[in-house]
Amino acid sequence: MSYALINKLTAKPGQRDRVAQILIESGKLFDDNAACIFSMVSESAQDANVLWVTDLWASREEHEAALKQPELRPFVAEALPLLEGMPEQIEVRPVGGKGFPQ
Amino acid sequence: MSYALINKLTAKPGQRDRVAQILIESGKLFDDNAACIFSMVSESAQDANVLWVTDLWASREEHEAALKQPELRPFVAEALPLLEGMPEQIEVRPVGGKGFPQ
Repeated sequence: MSYALINKLTAKPGQRDRVAQILIESGKLFDDNAACIFSMVSESAQDANVLWVTDLWASREEHEAALKQPELRPFVAEALPLLEGMPEQIEVRPVGGKGFPQ
Repeated sequence: MSYALINKLTAKPGQRDRVAQILIESGKLFDDNAACIFSMVSESAQDANVLWVTDLWASREEHEAALKQPELRPFVAEALPLLEGMPEQIEVRPVGGKGFPQ
């Protein structure tokens, strides 16, 4: 069953671009992982400090396994201090749509 | 420039499944529209009444044109009374990711 997360990240003032770069760069670790079906790093058009990251994975288990790879740690370590608090993580269950396997 | 929306919809109690069906059904209108790159209808895992809909379009103009097609109106007319208030629409600018053209 596919599994998705919608994450809202609030960067400290002036840090949004850098956080977006880190997210894009770290996301490349999943380029060859077929379980990562879709991932979108996006800037809020309404709030200059906010990023929204939408990830669609083939399963929760594969997502959790991907998060455990040690190559990810330096990205997390660099990004977290640039955020106001922790990312707000919204777990969702895809029920339909276009552009991904049902 | 690609354009995306993250929409949060809160259904009236007991109506979430029906609203999701309407969204999936109406989304089929865009199946043959190449400007609709990705669309995901998903249920919140945390709130039994909430749906999140993520849409990625090739451009804002093509999205607006798609919304104007008359075939969409009956779906909107059926769904709106099943919601608590209006959908919360978050406009975002994709800056990177996987599974869509840059």
